[in-house]
Amino acid sequence: MAKSNSIHGNAVVGQSGGPTCVINQSLVGVIEQFTASARGKLFGMRHGVAGLSKEDLVDLTRVPKTRLAGIAQTPSAALGSSRDKPDVDYCQRLFEVCRKRDIRYFFYIGGNDSADTARIVNEVAASNNYPLHVFHIPKTIDNDLRVNDHTPGYGSAAKWVASAFIGDDMDNRSLPGVKINVVMGRNAGFLTAASVLARVARNSGPHLVYVPEVDFSEAQFVADVQATVDRIGRCVVAVSEGVHRAGECALAGELDKNAPIDAHGNKLLSGGALGDHLVRLVKGAIHAGRVRSDTFGYLQRCFPGVVSKTDAAEARKAAQTAVKLALRGEPSGSVAIIRTGNRPYKVAFERTELANVARKTKHLDLKYVNKAGNNILDSFKDYVAPLAGELPKIELLV
Amino acid sequence: MAKSNSIHGNAVVGQSGGPTCVINQSLVGVIEQFTASARGKLFGMRHGVAGLSKEDLVDLTRVPKTRLAGIAQTPSAALGSSRDKPDVDYCQRLFEVCRKRDIRYFFYIGGNDSADTARIVNEVAASNNYPLHVFHIPKTIDNDLRVNDHTPGYGSAAKWVASAFIGDDMDNRSLPGVKINVVMGRNAGFLTAASVLARVARNSGPHLVYVPEVDFSEAQFVADVQATVDRIGRCVVAVSEGVHRAGECALAGELDKNAPIDAHGNKLLSGGALGDHLVRLVKGAIHAGRVRSDTFGYLQRCFPGVVSKTDAAEARKAAQTAVKLALRGEPSGSVAIIRTGNRPYKVAFERTELANVARKTKHLDLKYVNKAGNNILDSFKDYVAPLAGELPKIELLV
Repeated sequence: MAKSNSIHGNAVVGQSGGPTCVINQSLVGVIEQFTASARGKLFGMRHGVAGLSKEDLVDLTRVPKTRLAGIAQTPSAALGSSRDKPDVDYCQRLFEVCRKRDIRYFFYIGGNDSADTARIVNEVAASNNYPLHVFHIPKTIDNDLRVNDHTPGYGSAAKWVASAFIGDDMDNRSLPGVKINVVMGRNAGFLTAASVLARVARNSGPHLVYVPEVDFSEAQFVADVQATVDRIGRCVVAVSEGVHRAGECALAGELDKNAPIDAHGNKLLSGGALGDHLVRLVKGAIHAGRVRSDTFGYLQRCFPGVVSKTDAAEARKAAQTAVKLALRGEPSGSVAIIRTGNRPYKVAFERTELANVARKTKHLDLKYVNKAGNNILDSFKDYVAPLAGELPKIELLV
Repeated sequence: MAKSNSIHGNAVVGQSGGPTCVINQSLVGVIEQFTASARGKLFGMRHGVAGLSKEDLVDLTRVPKTRLAGIAQTPSAALGSSRDKPDVDYCQRLFEVCRKRDIRYFFYIGGNDSADTARIVNEVAASNNYPLHVFHIPKTIDNDLRVNDHTPGYGSAAKWVASAFIGDDMDNRSLPGVKINVVMGRNAGFLTAASVLARVARNSGPHLVYVPEVDFSEAQFVADVQATVDRIGRCVVAVSEGVHRAGECALAGELDKNAPIDAHGNKLLSGGALGDHLVRLVKGAIHAGRVRSDTFGYLQRCFPGVVSKTDAAEARKAAQTAVKLALRGEPSGSVAIIRTGNRPYKVAFERTELANVARKTKHLDLKYVNKAGNNILDSFKDYVAPLAGELPKIELLV
């Protein structure tokens, strides 16, 4: 809606899409900030818009503080999440429930599809002359929301991926060979690129990094591995699940013609097929001793205890900002995280139009990719290090 | 060798087999305890017996304390590991190098194969009337060494697996469906069974647990999943990589007829084939919505920052004990961890014969398996909880 004075009335909050380690920080940020205002009741949608459409709501107005503290530390979406992709009719139904429950504030935590849902709900409310403050709160480990420098959830996933590579590189030093790790990232290579944080010592891996922003050639991949093994006697590889041959869809999907397709038209890329395929390629072409793969899979997004403090704090702050903006009557929008400094690292939380973050996604800037297209430059560390926060320390003996 | 007074002379230490998060605690335990005695020099084998056979040794006599502290915290084998399986001729060669370097103390950190190597080296030395104190120091995330209540490395891996399941169960609550997690464990189900530590809240998973000690039936598996989904609307499964149909080898190996075979005659079970196969089975048979799998793979053994304090302390203490026994002239042997109390948890470190832990392995006691063979009883928590140590806390909202 257009800018107006804030209004009394109830609020609703939901969580959507793949869960993260800090999406509950955002939920708790909404709960604390809204309930402190005493504007009305706060309802939680069970499983996002799916719950709202069925009026499956939880009253969040009086959750004890100590319980909120525990929930904020708990990974995954405490209200339940949803993969529904609402169209205009679906949003019309959501709006009807809001009107029925006297809901005047609508907070939705999620990625670009969630921003689009918020955008449509906002338009339906406006066309009905119903004052509804709709705010989207960013979340995605993929880090692919436009306008945002980065998104809540990414920093913790980056920390997990970096930690995994630090340990796996030590493993590979002790039993040398080729190790291929498949990292989440259908369209954007941000999370795979975060693996370069593991380059903390002499000859540390990953030695090769492949992202979906660059066409993937299996022949080149094998040659790259061979060259690395020739140079240092071993090779640790980071590869995005979304890598694809020139002009083709993701290789992981191509390998399994029967892979299921979700509501968003995306073919399922999880499972071990890509890693197993790359292992066979290497084994068939070169003599590199041990050749193994791991597909990091869903562990990357909800592993408790490996959380970036910066990420957790920003997830909370983004949500608090959304509530503050809504309560003071700002027009509906999304909260974007803008980096305002790197030494020391500083961010600002700014309102942006819902349409700016809805639907389309952002890609990894090619300035971070080396010329050969088989690695991420160390300059990416400057971008990602403050987001991932402190990493485990290692010490080499030999 | 038979009991004798301790002797001056040099020592050698090596690390063998799959690395763990705490095998360097044992290495540092040997270094600190032996160098404090000033009996002679301490050499490290590069990549276990492979390095010793080539005289590829590192002088460990004067590593600074602060560096040792860093190495102890670093996962994986700092000296490098080895998968070599020495026979008597190979051990004869190892003995020759020991004689040449005036090595009188031989410490080898590893599993049952390493204990067997130590046993043969000890016999070769004895038959040459060469006084050599040979001590094996236990290590394996598989937890399958005989005599030992449990082995260093297992507690940290158990903590990692439990943490992964805690997060993954929250993920599965937020986006309900069937989730199948494949856990390391070729012959023994200890690590897979540790997943029951994740049952921390109402209806927490894993809801089904399959270990190699029980024959696996794919038809029964699908029926078990169906029953769980019917009951609570979702299902989280823990399955050992080594599960097998009655009278057959591991299913993971059966699925890939071309899987490579290592020096120990073991077929490679890593890779995503088993998880992908089980997903297809479930999808083909029942309507359970989202069905996904993850294969935890090598991440289970060297993930930094997710380490059990008890495990780290015991790995150090087992090594110190081995050095003390050797220095006071006890006959060659292995150090076994014996549990002497559970409330409070207490252990003793005792010398045992090398032959007692060499070659053969231990299996999970069937008293921990439920009657249907598709779950691990909560009584296993009493066994594993003190080993894994503190776990992440979670809080449910709904």
